[in-house]
Order: sequence, then structure tokens, then C-alpha cells
Amino acid sequence: MELLKSTIEKIKGLDETTMTGAKDRMDNLIKPVGSLGRLEELAVQLSGITSNMHPDVKKKAVIVMSADNGVCCEGVAAAPPVVTLMMTNHIANGVSGMASIAKTAGAGVVVVDIGVDGDVQNEKVVARKVRYGTGNIAEGPAMTREEAIKGIEVGIEVASEQIKNGVKLIATGEMGIGNTTTSTAVLSVLSGVHPSEITGVGANLPGDKIAHKVEVIQKAIAVNNPDRNDPLDILSKLGGLDIAGMAGIMLSCAASRIPCVVDGYISTVAALLACRICPDVKDFLIPSHASFEKGSVLAAELLGLRPMLHMDMRLGEGSGAALAFGIIDAAAAISKDMITFAEAGIGTV
Amino acid sequence: MELLKSTIEKIKGLDETTMTGAKDRMDNLIKPVGSLGRLEELAVQLSGITSNMHPDVKKKAVIVMSADNGVCCEGVAAAPPVVTLMMTNHIANGVSGMASIAKTAGAGVVVVDIGVDGDVQNEKVVARKVRYGTGNIAEGPAMTREEAIKGIEVGIEVASEQIKNGVKLIATGEMGIGNTTTSTAVLSVLSGVHPSEITGVGANLPGDKIAHKVEVIQKAIAVNNPDRNDPLDILSKLGGLDIAGMAGIMLSCAASRIPCVVDGYISTVAALLACRICPDVKDFLIPSHASFEKGSVLAAELLGLRPMLHMDMRLGEGSGAALAFGIIDAAAAISKDMITFAEAGIGTV
Repeated sequence: MELLKSTIEKIKGLDETTMTGAKDRMDNLIKPVGSLGRLEELAVQLSGITSNMHPDVKKKAVIVMSADNGVCCEGVAAAPPVVTLMMTNHIANGVSGMASIAKTAGAGVVVVDIGVDGDVQNEKVVARKVRYGTGNIAEGPAMTREEAIKGIEVGIEVASEQIKNGVKLIATGEMGIGNTTTSTAVLSVLSGVHPSEITGVGANLPGDKIAHKVEVIQKAIAVNNPDRNDPLDILSKLGGLDIAGMAGIMLSCAASRIPCVVDGYISTVAALLACRICPDVKDFLIPSHASFEKGSVLAAELLGLRPMLHMDMRLGEGSGAALAFGIIDAAAAISKDMITFAEAGIGTV
Repeated sequence: MELLKSTIEKIKGLDETTMTGAKDRMDNLIKPVGSLGRLEELAVQLSGITSNMHPDVKKKAVIVMSADNGVCCEGVAAAPPVVTLMMTNHIANGVSGMASIAKTAGAGVVVVDIGVDGDVQNEKVVARKVRYGTGNIAEGPAMTREEAIKGIEVGIEVASEQIKNGVKLIATGEMGIGNTTTSTAVLSVLSGVHPSEITGVGANLPGDKIAHKVEVIQKAIAVNNPDRNDPLDILSKLGGLDIAGMAGIMLSCAASRIPCVVDGYISTVAALLACRICPDVKDFLIPSHASFEKGSVLAAELLGLRPMLHMDMRLGEGSGAALAFGIIDAAAAISKDMITFAEAGIGTV
């Protein structure tokens, strides 16, 4: 709890002075004012985060939080829980979807066993297991409040280590069979929207099993009855360790003034919790893609982040966030490489 | 005309056999089937274009067609025509918005003077001027039919040269004050939609001048009365040499079986003309961003390409297409670097 508390205390909003300077320069670059749209906004945000007119985002990492969810025994996922362990290894070994994408962006991949229900025997995986999977939320809490805090603190520590190693841009990712169920339960409580309106297919759950998934989520909310004004209560009762760890990454990035790219559905739910824990975290988040998962539209709206990529992706792992790295590189490049009208010796277009 | 004719004759559709193999492999990679959405579709398209299960898109270039438009004398653009010449130099010198973005993607930039109304004295600019700017379309044709064909052939030749030099992925870009006016005139004729519904601000034309821009476009269509079933008639009467050159690039890419990324509004209008000239060109086109320019939604719908990036950009130069290069790299990477379930020694997720 001490680490979480001290991290929150470090978080301050954007550097308005640098942002004003960056916005002014942006308006004087050799292009019609505003014509680079959201790329300009992103460049200005990066300046506000880093207090740097020419932000450096070169060294990048996707941090993947791997954890199992006890609710899988209710038959809410198409894949068996053992896939979490297998895919944790494949991601760490660089042969998964996200790993392939991250490589094209020159980004590192850090896979963390924060709660896999099995022994991960892979040196490439960071061993920070809080527990062997969570409890079945349809019958009781996913974990204790202390475990949820511990999960967040693992995220804080792993991100801090990357930042100490010179990483300037971090993306969140996850691996955990059953985590669209936990995320939808959390989102339903945070938003007050009924699970039936936001429950999707996850990783190809057959259409005729969606109604059952909705029932399980309803039951989980009823059984646990979380305090909707207490993000740690919601997280510990309905969430997962992947979500806890990703919320921790976001808090850590905000405390260290490093931009953090939010992936799809699960990551956005983690971002909602992180922002409930500390609202200023929002300033440090960068959206990526519009996930195909049903609840993602509501989650993004609630967070107030508008996705940049529309790729109908729903893989997770941080794949959409990794795909957004190139856009962020471009935003940094326009502040660095474009010249102003004055530098070009001409008047405004 | 001979080069255009022989280029069209070379264009054949996608390689269905390779695509079937690529789709099959895609469905067996270690991820839920379809979970990488449009990235999977893109990877399969790249295989169909190149007849290669693991398409190579490493060497890239943005080809920028620079040309002036006589219609500027009607007061339809906020910037004076001389900006075309200035920006042609800035793009070639690597300090423009698109040039900055292209650099982050490791792409080359080729700037072509296909019709700048002034002498471009810059060794970095490819000198292929067809004429010094076009005529004022509000009073007569932009150019002769022969000049329009010559413009297309310049595009074919410049793209062919890049392809001969080993470029595997090409994007279209343009620079030309007044070219949202010409593009909207062309789009209005192609679609049958009234100019008032698709005329936008271009490069920050003040809102109170939009009505005048609409009138000029209406007048241009009335004065020239192009045959809407003859793309070369529409192009020569209402278009510009930038549009002609970009249509040529697309035809050349299709003939050489190289994927071509379509930028925003002006590029999409050029793509519509290229596809009217030869419908199979469509198979070789890759969408990029949703331009903020008003007519771009209709243009993209008419072409049948769904933008991937939603950045509210409206700079032109090929900036949105350059931003999409990273997505295409990612699509190529998933076919190359991901392993199948069989290779991983496990069953389907």
C-alpha cells in the first residue's frame, strides 16, 4: 500500500507552459493550421507529459500482464485456462501476434507472470506471481483487497524498472483466458450499464453461449456487491491480476511522466480503474485502436479516449497499442523535423 | 497513349491461389481465428498482390505529384498559388509534415514536378512538367485530353522507376493549391452528388467563402459538361495534373503487382478515376486515413475502401498514407513471424 500511495502522490497534471509553447510552434509549422489534426494534439500532449518541446519516444516497451481467472470454470471462455500459460510463453518467445507487431515498431516486449495458474518455466518471463489465478467471481471475490493492491504495485514496479532502463513510451497488454468476463463485470459496475448490453464474444465464444456469460457476470456482481465508489473494492471482487497490473503500469507512467498507450477492451477497463484511483492519470494515456469487443465503445467513451485505429482487432496482448507506436513516432517527428514558416523564410499559408 | 494502353493490358486481378493459402495459414496462427481483424485481411491481400505467402514491403516510397491549378484565380483557396512551388521544395528537402512522417517509417520521398506553375530549381525534385499549371476550369478545360494522358503516363513512368529500384510499397501524395476544388468537381461528376454536399474547407478556406467555392465548381461542371462515362474526359476537363499523375502511379503499381497506399481526399479521387480506367486497379489499393475534408467520406465509400486511421488530418502530401506504412509492416510481420498452432505443438485456441 505504501508504494501505491507514494506513486499517487507523485502524479501531477500536464506541464501547461510547455504545452502552450508546443501548441504555438505547431501552429507555425509549414502547414495549414490544424491540418495534421490529432497528430498535432498528440505531439502537444507528449510535450505536456515530458516537459519537452521535442519529446523523445524512441525506446519503447509493451508490458504484458499474464494472469488466470477462476471464473473460467463457469464456461465463459472458448479456450481452456491452460492457454494462458502457453501464450505467456509464446509472447515472451516473440512468436505471438503482438510480439510480431512490436518488433516492426522496434519495441521491446516484457511479459510478467502476475497470476498465471501454473508454473511458468521461462527465463524470459518476469516472475511476479501474486497468486495462482483468481477465485471464481461467480461465487466470491476474485482476490483480497491486499492482493489487488499487490497486483497494482507489481505493475508500478515493473514499469518503473523499464523507465529506469531508459524506456520512454510504454504500452499495456494482457494475456488471460476469461478476462473479457472480468472486465465486463468491472465495466458494468463502473458504468451502471447492464451486462447484457456490453458482453461480447471475447476470443470467439460461440454466440449461443453469450447469454450464459451475461448470467455469470450478473451473478458475480450480485454475489460480490462491490462498492461502486471504491475502485479497489471493484477490482478485488470482480477484476483480475492482469487488470490490477495494467492499472499499476498506468499509475507508474503518470508518476514518472512517461506516456502510456492503452490497448483495447481489457486495458481500457484497467485505465478506468486507474483514473478512479487517481484522475490525473488520464493526462498520460494515449488511445490506440477501437477493439471489436462489444463493450469497448462504452469503455472508451467512459474513459474519454477516442481510438485512432479502426482495425476490428480483438486479440489483446497489447497488439493494438503496439500498432499505435508508429503514430506516436510520427507525432514526435513533426515537432522535431518540420520547420516553421519563419524558418522557411515565408509567411503563413 | 501507348504506355497507358500497355500498362492497362498488364493488369490482372489478385492471385487467388496464394490468397487461399495465406488465409488458411492466417486461420491457423496462434490466435483466435479472425482476432487480428483487418490486419489479417491486409496480410492476405498483400499475398494476393505479390503471389508471396510472406510478402516483402520493406522498401517504401511516397511519390508526391506537384501541380498548380488555374482555378485558383477564382479565389477558391486560402493560400496563394506560389505556395505549391515553395512546398514542393520543402517536401523534397524533408522538412514538411509528410516528409517527417515518412522518415519515421523508413520510407523514401520522391517529389515530381508534373505541372508546377513556375520553375522548380531543385535537384531533388524530379522534373516531369507536362505544362505550367492547368487552365481555369470555371472557364474551360483544365487541360487537353493528350495532356491528361501524358500526366497519367508520367505517373506510370515515375512509379515504374521506383519499382525497378526495388521499392515494394508505394504511397500516393500531392501538392497543389486549389486541388480540393478540382477533386470535388471530379467527384461530383463521378458520383452525381451536388457540389454543395461535398465541398469542404480544403487548406483552411474561411467558412464564408465555401458558398463561392461551390458556385465555382458548379460553373466548372456546367461550362465543361464532361462525359461522366469517360474518366479521361472528366480528368482533362475538371481535374489536375497531380490527380492524373497519381492515377498513373496506381495503374503502374497494379501492372507491376505492387501494393499502393491511397492517401486522403485528392488521392481517393485519383483512385476513383484509375478504377474507372481499369477496375482491377482496386485490388492493389490499400486505404489509409479518413481525411477531415468534407467530401472524403463519399469518395471512400464510392471507391469501397474503408479508412484505417481516424486522425482528422487534412494536410495532403501523402501524410496519411505515410502514417499507414507501419500498419502494412505489421500485416506483413504477422504472416512472417507468427507461428501456427501446429508449429507450437498445440491445438486450436
